[in-house]
Amino acid sequence: MKKIGVLNKYDITVKRGIIGDCGEKIREISNADIAAVISDDNVAPIYLDTVTKSLQRAGFTVYSFVFPHGEENKNIQTVMKMVEFFAKKGLTRTDIAVALGGGVCGDMCGFAASIYLRGINFVQIPTSLLAQVDSSVGGKTGCDLEAGKNLVGAFHHPSLVLIDPDTLATLPEKYMADGMGEVIKTGLIRSKKLFSELEKGEKYENIDDIIYECVKIKAEVVENDFTEKGERMLLNFGHTVGHAIEKLENFSGISHGMAVGVGMVMITKAAEKAGLCEIGTADRIIGLLEKYGMPTETMHNEKDIVAVAMSDKKRRSNTINTVLLKKIGDSFIYPIECEKFEDFLKRS
Amino acid sequence: MKKIGVLNKYDITVKRGIIGDCGEKIREISNADIAAVISDDNVAPIYLDTVTKSLQRAGFTVYSFVFPHGEENKNIQTVMKMVEFFAKKGLTRTDIAVALGGGVCGDMCGFAASIYLRGINFVQIPTSLLAQVDSSVGGKTGCDLEAGKNLVGAFHHPSLVLIDPDTLATLPEKYMADGMGEVIKTGLIRSKKLFSELEKGEKYENIDDIIYECVKIKAEVVENDFTEKGERMLLNFGHTVGHAIEKLENFSGISHGMAVGVGMVMITKAAEKAGLCEIGTADRIIGLLEKYGMPTETMHNEKDIVAVAMSDKKRRSNTINTVLLKKIGDSFIYPIECEKFEDFLKRS
Repeated sequence: MKKIGVLNKYDITVKRGIIGDCGEKIREISNADIAAVISDDNVAPIYLDTVTKSLQRAGFTVYSFVFPHGEENKNIQTVMKMVEFFAKKGLTRTDIAVALGGGVCGDMCGFAASIYLRGINFVQIPTSLLAQVDSSVGGKTGCDLEAGKNLVGAFHHPSLVLIDPDTLATLPEKYMADGMGEVIKTGLIRSKKLFSELEKGEKYENIDDIIYECVKIKAEVVENDFTEKGERMLLNFGHTVGHAIEKLENFSGISHGMAVGVGMVMITKAAEKAGLCEIGTADRIIGLLEKYGMPTETMHNEKDIVAVAMSDKKRRSNTINTVLLKKIGDSFIYPIECEKFEDFLKRS
Repeated sequence: MKKIGVLNKYDITVKRGIIGDCGEKIREISNADIAAVISDDNVAPIYLDTVTKSLQRAGFTVYSFVFPHGEENKNIQTVMKMVEFFAKKGLTRTDIAVALGGGVCGDMCGFAASIYLRGINFVQIPTSLLAQVDSSVGGKTGCDLEAGKNLVGAFHHPSLVLIDPDTLATLPEKYMADGMGEVIKTGLIRSKKLFSELEKGEKYENIDDIIYECVKIKAEVVENDFTEKGERMLLNFGHTVGHAIEKLENFSGISHGMAVGVGMVMITKAAEKAGLCEIGTADRIIGLLEKYGMPTETMHNEKDIVAVAMSDKKRRSNTINTVLLKKIGDSFIYPIECEKFEDFLKRS
């Protein structure tokens, strides 16, 4: 078991089988009567029973709310159903919500917990690799609006994050690859060691350690953000381009992690050509993405990508803060004037 | 002009005519491009034009959203319309929302601002006495759910509160009386001087000073709450009983301020009989309520009131923290066992 303290506020634990002991762990940080478990209809059939029984053994009265899986249900209607569910079950300020599922589940459950009675505690039990290495840590919660993705939400830290790598055994390969996009990104921006181990090892070898390393780095970066150095922006490496590609495919084509992978390649090729990044870095990224069966290029051209990226941001200033690599494990923020961004990217 | 700094975070200004200079004042604390004004269809016809022009003179691009007035529209659907409006108008994190209206408007606009892009700044321009002396200060925002009142929300402090007592000239008398309920409460819990001046003066004499005094006291109490002494609870004087009476009338009978007035009388009569409060205090409260044309008793009996108050709270412990007066201007928290609360109240 590996335990990380974050912001002196909550613990993140990585341990195989911990899902079966979640009640005991949650009892250590909560004297709630009621635990309201939120899950989706993919995850609930596999883990809800185990979680419920563990919570009951720890003395919680357990109620569960299962919503239809998928990004298309990540909207305010679903969040409101969760909140009405909390009210109907009589949750008080000292009760607790438990997010059992992937990123969509954690984001919405966290948001619902943040607004119900102006904020109750919640626990993250992320079951996808993407949620384990990324979205369960950092306190960003929310959902989409008709006008766009993640436009409403709250900063609401979980009281506890319980990561059980055993849950990955039931995760379809494409979702594993999706998570690996963020894992590779984490190595690239902050840990040469992590990146090298991914290159050397078998696929998914030592996944527990990899998750632990990613979470540790993200927790550090998020904590440093409170000092206002803007370090949290580094987590967006590959995201400006990646997000534009996702949007060009109407969020129903390439997955988030894969789009970020392509974005990392494009921006790094451009950085190499501009003399800002060690030559050969993009090739190593491509090699690792291919190892995990991820795409390394897109059919969309730079002009369309830049047009979408610009419209997407509505920024005040005329500058875009791009994250670039100096070399593997070493990232920095590089401001580019918006009108020069297309030319910059065209070098890729 | 009187200015109060709160929590070292934002200013509250009380000044006649300030509504016509709101743009200039808001510009001092915001470099936003867009100001999104939220108002209701009672207030907008009177003040929206003045506010819009002042904001435009200060260089803001102004968009306004007007919703149908009334407590029945204080729901998540209205809040979501506000948020979709922010998105449609392209507000960024540095833009600002302006709540122009009574408590319902401020609560919902503040909540919408707190969740849009995980939080943008907002300004309160309260136009009712109740909002000026109470709800615009303290950072509580939110709306009702089908399951009950104020069940969702966020703590989100305004960046600025601009109070223009001239707006009270257009406020119907019944809403003035409603606000006076909270004014009288404020004197009772914390300021003998305020209470005595209300007794001595003509109705609404020196209303500017009265508003200033109330806001100052509320700001102090809210600030002290951060030290976790539970002092904020004192603001609930009269509210347990008052809220139960409102609920018994399905929130469509007696107004909030008037219900609180009755609640203060009942609980103080009981406290006097229990030897906890200076004799004659309830009579002075009754005298002042009558001066402002407010009711001092209810047709509902103690049994029904207590039943509703108990079901309303769903408290863990078997104790209810009641706020009582030692004497005028001096309040304290008095825990009573739930089953004894009815007997206690029956003394009233």
